[in-house]
Amino acid sequence: MAKLMKKSSIKAGLPPGSLIFVGDKRAGEAKVNVIDYDEDHFQEKKLKRIDECFVFKNKAPITWIDVDMVNETNIVEKLGECHVLHPLVLEDILNTDQRPKMEDYGEYLYIVVRMLTCSGKNGDIESEQLSLILGPNYLISFQEKEGDVFNPVRERLRANKGRIRKAGADYLAYCLLDAIVDNYFVVLENYGERIELLEEQLIVNPTPATLKALHTLKRDMIFLRKSVWPLREVIAGLEREGASLISDSTRLYMRDVYDHTIQVIDALETFRDILSGMLDIYLSSVSHKLNEVMKVLTIIATIFIPLTFIVGLYGMNFKHMPELEWYWGYPAVLLVMFIISLFMVAFFRKKKWI
Amino acid sequence: MAKLMKKSSIKAGLPPGSLIFVGDKRAGEAKVNVIDYDEDHFQEKKLKRIDECFVFKNKAPITWIDVDMVNETNIVEKLGECHVLHPLVLEDILNTDQRPKMEDYGEYLYIVVRMLTCSGKNGDIESEQLSLILGPNYLISFQEKEGDVFNPVRERLRANKGRIRKAGADYLAYCLLDAIVDNYFVVLENYGERIELLEEQLIVNPTPATLKALHTLKRDMIFLRKSVWPLREVIAGLEREGASLISDSTRLYMRDVYDHTIQVIDALETFRDILSGMLDIYLSSVSHKLNEVMKVLTIIATIFIPLTFIVGLYGMNFKHMPELEWYWGYPAVLLVMFIISLFMVAFFRKKKWI
Amino acid sequence: MAKLMKKSSIKAGLPPGSLIFVGDKRAGEAKVNVIDYDEDHFQEKKLKRIDECFVFKNKAPITWIDVDMVNETNIVEKLGECHVLHPLVLEDILNTDQRPKMEDYGEYLYIVVRMLTCSGKNGDIESEQLSLILGPNYLISFQEKEGDVFNPVRERLRANKGRIRKAGADYLAYCLLDAIVDNYFVVLENYGERIELLEEQLIVNPTPATLKALHTLKRDMIFLRKSVWPLREVIAGLEREGASLISDSTRLYMRDVYDHTIQVIDALETFRDILSGMLDIYLSSVSHKLNEVMKVLTIIATIFIPLTFIVGLYGMNFKHMPELEWYWGYPAVLLVMFIISLFMVAFFRKKKWI
Amino acid sequence: MAKLMKKSSIKAGLPPGSLIFVGDKRAGEAKVNVIDYDEDHFQEKKLKRIDECFVFKNKAPITWIDVDMVNETNIVEKLGECHVLHPLVLEDILNTDQRPKMEDYGEYLYIVVRMLTCSGKNGDIESEQLSLILGPNYLISFQEKEGDVFNPVRERLRANKGRIRKAGADYLAYCLLDAIVDNYFVVLENYGERIELLEEQLIVNPTPATLKALHTLKRDMIFLRKSVWPLREVIAGLEREGASLISDSTRLYMRDVYDHTIQVIDALETFRDILSGMLDIYLSSVSHKLNEVMKVLTIIATIFIPLTFIVGLYGMNFKHMPELEWYWGYPAVLLVMFIISLFMVAFFRKKKWI
Amino acid sequence: MAKLMKKSSIKAGLPPGSLIFVGDKRAGEAKVNVIDYDEDHFQEKKLKRIDECFVFKNKAPITWIDVDMVNETNIVEKLGECHVLHPLVLEDILNTDQRPKMEDYGEYLYIVVRMLTCSGKNGDIESEQLSLILGPNYLISFQEKEGDVFNPVRERLRANKGRIRKAGADYLAYCLLDAIVDNYFVVLENYGERIELLEEQLIVNPTPATLKALHTLKRDMIFLRKSVWPLREVIAGLEREGASLISDSTRLYMRDVYDHTIQVIDALETFRDILSGMLDIYLSSVSHKLNEVMKVLTIIATIFIPLTFIVGLYGMNFKHMPELEWYWGYPAVLLVMFIISLFMVAFFRKKKWI
Repeated sequence: MAKLMKKSSIKAGLPPGSLIFVGDKRAGEAKVNVIDYDEDHFQEKKLKRIDECFVFKNKAPITWIDVDMVNETNIVEKLGECHVLHPLVLEDILNTDQRPKMEDYGEYLYIVVRMLTCSGKNGDIESEQLSLILGPNYLISFQEKEGDVFNPVRERLRANKGRIRKAGADYLAYCLLDAIVDNYFVVLENYGERIELLEEQLIVNPTPATLKALHTLKRDMIFLRKSVWPLREVIAGLEREGASLISDSTRLYMRDVYDHTIQVIDALETFRDILSGMLDIYLSSVSHKLNEVMKVLTIIATIFIPLTFIVGLYGMNFKHMPELEWYWGYPAVLLVMFIISLFMVAFFRKKKWI
Repeated sequence: MAKLMKKSSIKAGLPPGSLIFVGDKRAGEAKVNVIDYDEDHFQEKKLKRIDECFVFKNKAPITWIDVDMVNETNIVEKLGECHVLHPLVLEDILNTDQRPKMEDYGEYLYIVVRMLTCSGKNGDIESEQLSLILGPNYLISFQEKEGDVFNPVRERLRANKGRIRKAGADYLAYCLLDAIVDNYFVVLENYGERIELLEEQLIVNPTPATLKALHTLKRDMIFLRKSVWPLREVIAGLEREGASLISDSTRLYMRDVYDHTIQVIDALETFRDILSGMLDIYLSSVSHKLNEVMKVLTIIATIFIPLTFIVGLYGMNFKHMPELEWYWGYPAVLLVMFIISLFMVAFFRKKKWI
Repeated sequence: MAKLMKKSSIKAGLPPGSLIFVGDKRAGEAKVNVIDYDEDHFQEKKLKRIDECFVFKNKAPITWIDVDMVNETNIVEKLGECHVLHPLVLEDILNTDQRPKMEDYGEYLYIVVRMLTCSGKNGDIESEQLSLILGPNYLISFQEKEGDVFNPVRERLRANKGRIRKAGADYLAYCLLDAIVDNYFVVLENYGERIELLEEQLIVNPTPATLKALHTLKRDMIFLRKSVWPLREVIAGLEREGASLISDSTRLYMRDVYDHTIQVIDALETFRDILSGMLDIYLSSVSHKLNEVMKVLTIIATIFIPLTFIVGLYGMNFKHMPELEWYWGYPAVLLVMFIISLFMVAFFRKKKWI
Repeated sequence: MAKLMKKSSIKAGLPPGSLIFVGDKRAGEAKVNVIDYDEDHFQEKKLKRIDECFVFKNKAPITWIDVDMVNETNIVEKLGECHVLHPLVLEDILNTDQRPKMEDYGEYLYIVVRMLTCSGKNGDIESEQLSLILGPNYLISFQEKEGDVFNPVRERLRANKGRIRKAGADYLAYCLLDAIVDNYFVVLENYGERIELLEEQLIVNPTPATLKALHTLKRDMIFLRKSVWPLREVIAGLEREGASLISDSTRLYMRDVYDHTIQVIDALETFRDILSGMLDIYLSSVSHKLNEVMKVLTIIATIFIPLTFIVGLYGMNFKHMPELEWYWGYPAVLLVMFIISLFMVAFFRKKKWI
Repeated sequence: MAKLMKKSSIKAGLPPGSLIFVGDKRAGEAKVNVIDYDEDHFQEKKLKRIDECFVFKNKAPITWIDVDMVNETNIVEKLGECHVLHPLVLEDILNTDQRPKMEDYGEYLYIVVRMLTCSGKNGDIESEQLSLILGPNYLISFQEKEGDVFNPVRERLRANKGRIRKAGADYLAYCLLDAIVDNYFVVLENYGERIELLEEQLIVNPTPATLKALHTLKRDMIFLRKSVWPLREVIAGLEREGASLISDSTRLYMRDVYDHTIQVIDALETFRDILSGMLDIYLSSVSHKLNEVMKVLTIIATIFIPLTFIVGLYGMNFKHMPELEWYWGYPAVLLVMFIISLFMVAFFRKKKWI
């Protein structure tokens, strides 16, 4: 899991609209990829200089400008100038600690969502901010890091499969959102498996490590929730009143993404409830183990302490201890001690301790 | 209880409307059963090929097409073509991890609910997705598995009992929903009994097994809740503004199902509250038992440890220990020890430990 | 407390409107009591046959038909026919596990509430379903069991006290609801006293029995809540928009019952909060007791275990142990042990354990 | 803290509007105090007979009739007749267990609030019901007990300070409400100090008495909450749509009281949160103390039990025990035991127990 | 952290609009700073007498009057007279325990927010009330203490950077609010770091000091929440319907501050959830440690107590104990004891205690 807070404090005191990258600086250059398409036409291009994409601006086909690694502020600035974006939008694109939101600026929609990916072997999730600018015939996407979940969408564009090349930029935006939400399910299944594994461990042999894993999972749930909850409102907004930029046919598809988002939220809440229940199980199993330990101690001590007293008694060195002289004294004492032990064992049996 | 998440991740990256079955694949073929009826006429038929049901499409009497085991995508596809269903609807029918919902597509309503059944001896619940397509004169039901709770409805159709043959397809849809919600009560009673059994156990002799049973019940409640809560909205939607497809007289009946759903939710919340209370009882009874164990240990140890010290004292081998020579030494020590024990017992009585 | 769930599952599979009694079957016959009144006229009659009450139907004065013990379905059926009630209403009257609700059928209102009474010495509450059919000039009440809280209302009718004989059937309905809600206060006071008693016990000497009593009270609160919460909506509905059947002057009185219901709900929430707090007290007092026990054990053991070691030391049988030969050896050892004990006691005092 | 419930059950069965005093009967007579004022004129009078105040009714200046100790029902009845109050209002005035509310009867407003005062040395709060009848040119206040927080208001009336003599009866009502809410701050500060005191105690030396104090504070918070929460709605009602009886200029002042009420509620919620946190601290400090006790026991026992075994070993009376004959046997054993102790101490140090 | 409640009780009984300072009295004089600016013109002035600022009142350029340390009531009074402010506003400015709010008085808006700053080395937060009076061409700010977070805003004004000198007083108000909310992030990051530090400690070595730190953090969160939650409504109010005083272009900026406020609230809730989880970890790690301690005790005691019994047995002084005479008696006993120990160790291994 990442740090609790990104360093957005470095912006305190700056005028609004200041373009400063907030987030983990990563080495490497920003990459700009442009796809220009309509039903009959398809062109894909990796740009070297950002200015090259300005030519696509007012041309008829739909243009998808995809910017990776937004840590270079000047790319954002130039794109902003070219498409007349509000300075606050540019600022938010660079501030990668946004919560998901949708803002309608009339001529374009500004959408922020979080892209989650499972990485590595232990399945840690990586979170990345995706900003979308949806205009009438263009879509600009800004990604925080390299790598995304959009390859299937690109494939469909290239292969001209399904509706995608026939529909507008709004449908493309839907496809990206759908890809992101579909990927949430991958993340959730990953967590579902980890929770079930932990549940088994908890019953077999709970250790402090189990507890730590539980805590980590709970914390991850809190972060996932923070990423997914506001998404609901975002997509509901796109479905309901997303202005003239979302066509009616796309709106039906948005409803479908909305349903998926609700399913994700439902699953998250279920996971949270189950994790809370597991903590209770852990605590009571720790108590139970303590009970077991104490029972063993009590049984052994309670049996032997009185016996030790008795043998100590006849170890005293008094001159006049008649029992010591008796011929059957020793066997008699052994017998007495045996009877006491039997009595003790019977007592513990009655208490259901053994 | 089933897995926490179904493998809906296999769909990540596919274009929307891709028909892929998500759920536990089951062996066996899909079965299609058609009932065609009006007040005077009744025909029931098991279809071999799905095309046979297309003839019923535009004919006047009401047609109920019931599809079992939807894992064959082509049946869904063909029915979709025949009744002009939206690709997203077909996708949702096959994705058996939906939450209950109702969508109005103008010419038909799409309803998803969960059918719960108690199976086996230990009363585990089985959950199954039921999709309903309600058109003006037809109802198509897609079931995830074989077996359902609709036999009484079929009987009434055959026997022409009550309103069922006189009313439209909307009333048939109501009957199916009513059968499903009625069956929730069977499931709830089952749980009610298990909770009461557990409550008794908890008081008589709580063990870690009790705790595990408690955890399982709690988890089941979370899953039941997930299935039933959204149903409320679904039925409220059908009652309130379910478009022209729900007639006014059926709407009254929908209100009745709505009331039952609320009752089910109420009972679920009550169960959850009671289960939470039981966990507290368990924890405190474990604490109480520990106290009991410790009291026994403390009483025995506290009485005998000082006595053992005394007998050890007179077991020392010092040359000059005048007490050892005394004639009444031994009895005197015995008396002292007896008095000490009495004192200790009195102390414990005062503390109310014995 | 009654069972967690009534056997409403026996209705699964039956067509809607099936008249089947759901609840605890009770021996004895149903009783029908009719009161026919207006300002100048009063007639009370115990009916033998249900048909006798049909004569009152369209006559001008107000008629109150009170049916006790609704387990005979044919009485409900005949009354339903006579007053043209919807089959779903008749079904709900017989299904005695309803949650409080109000339904407006245009010509009559159907109201379900729960009547609570304290019975026996230990003050267990009895819950009973009361169904009211309020028409323009008649009121039909169906009670689940014999005995009710309406005698003061009957007295007022007989004695012509207050507004009751001057006002309409809606005012009579108000009087019955008011009597029921007033009786909730009796039940609440009963619980208030039991909670205060338990609170005292908890401080003086908490035992597992206290815990069980706490659990029972908590469970009762859950059930009371379930009975009273929905009543709020019911009465708010009657006050606000209860159609033409509730006159404006009666509406003011309904507001008064509404206030009382809110007070009851407030008190219930307070009780729940207090009971939750009491559980915490119980748990921490159990912990505290364990601490006390352990302190006693630790003090005794910690003082005597080292001493026992010392006396054991000089009980060894080595040939060459110079201390044993010393004349002051024994007193010296006694002194050493005394000093060690003093030191230990001082240590415990510092720790504030004694 | 008072009883959990007042005896409002004595009213069960009585017709609505029955005038019966519900609350703690107090000895002493009711007192009626009348202040009649406008900008130029001021008259204050203690009445002996309630009829004397009827003369003020229709006269132009504003009249404030203040009734202390409402246990005499006939005063309420006569005032009710004189000012044509609804019987339900009179009933509520006498039933001193009302929750705060505001009811608009067209010609007058009926307002119920709770007046809280800190009394005695340990700062227990006293709660008292205040009923206000606000008419166009009169205000009648009914207090449950003697003594109130209105003396500053009376002073301002006498001294003609500020707006009070220039404004109408609605402004007078505002002044009383303001005085009551201002006094809530006094009560809250009292509790704030008690909570801070307890917090210190909890850290220094938590005892069961601390726990009991915590419980009492929590319970008090529940009661305060019950008194203050509904007040919010009451004052919001007066501010928003309090009919023609509240002038626009007074409405601004009502908003101010509303703000104060919100502040009081905020503080209450903060107190509740802090108290909950304190319980957790208590519980874990009890656990921590148990740990300390057990560590001492374990350290002492674990060091000496093996040593005691060793000295017991050489206290055996076998004939052939060669070690006993050795000249250096005794010192060797002492050395061995010393080394064992060192080892044990090192072990505990490693575990960070000492 | 400050006291739980400020002494607002000193106001109880005073007429509304009484100008009394509520808060911590600080030595030193109030300071008044005036900035008068428009696009071409800039004037900054430290005033000695408050009357000097009256000249700016009706002049065209925008005037920002910034008052530090409001404990002198007469400054507030004079400014109030000059700008015709409502007496309740003046009262609220001086009562420094307000919750954030926004009130529209038609000719001006009154806004109260809390300014938080991190001070000192251990990062305690300081909270200060800021009152803003926003008129058509002036902004008056009242600060409780010296020092603020507005220096960057002043710099921008002086340097004429960005929109600030071109826009109106509403934009200036936005800049101040933005500076305050930006500073919340600094505070939150501070807390984020403290929480992460504590989380590490909790895992490495939890002590009662950790618990106390946890409690302090939780309490701070409660206070932060109280300061920030109502701010949401305040800014939403300014964005939505802040009357004619907020221009449309500024409204977009207000939406940006609104987003930041939501982010702050989100982070606060996340912190609260994490802190709750940490308490559970603490409690269970304390339990775990107790288990460890008890296991050591039990293992040592359970092994040696039986052995001690055996050596005590052969330390008895009976005349006739044949074993004592055997030549191999001593080695045999040693062997037996060794076997018993082995058995015990095996038992503990099976239990997974060692």
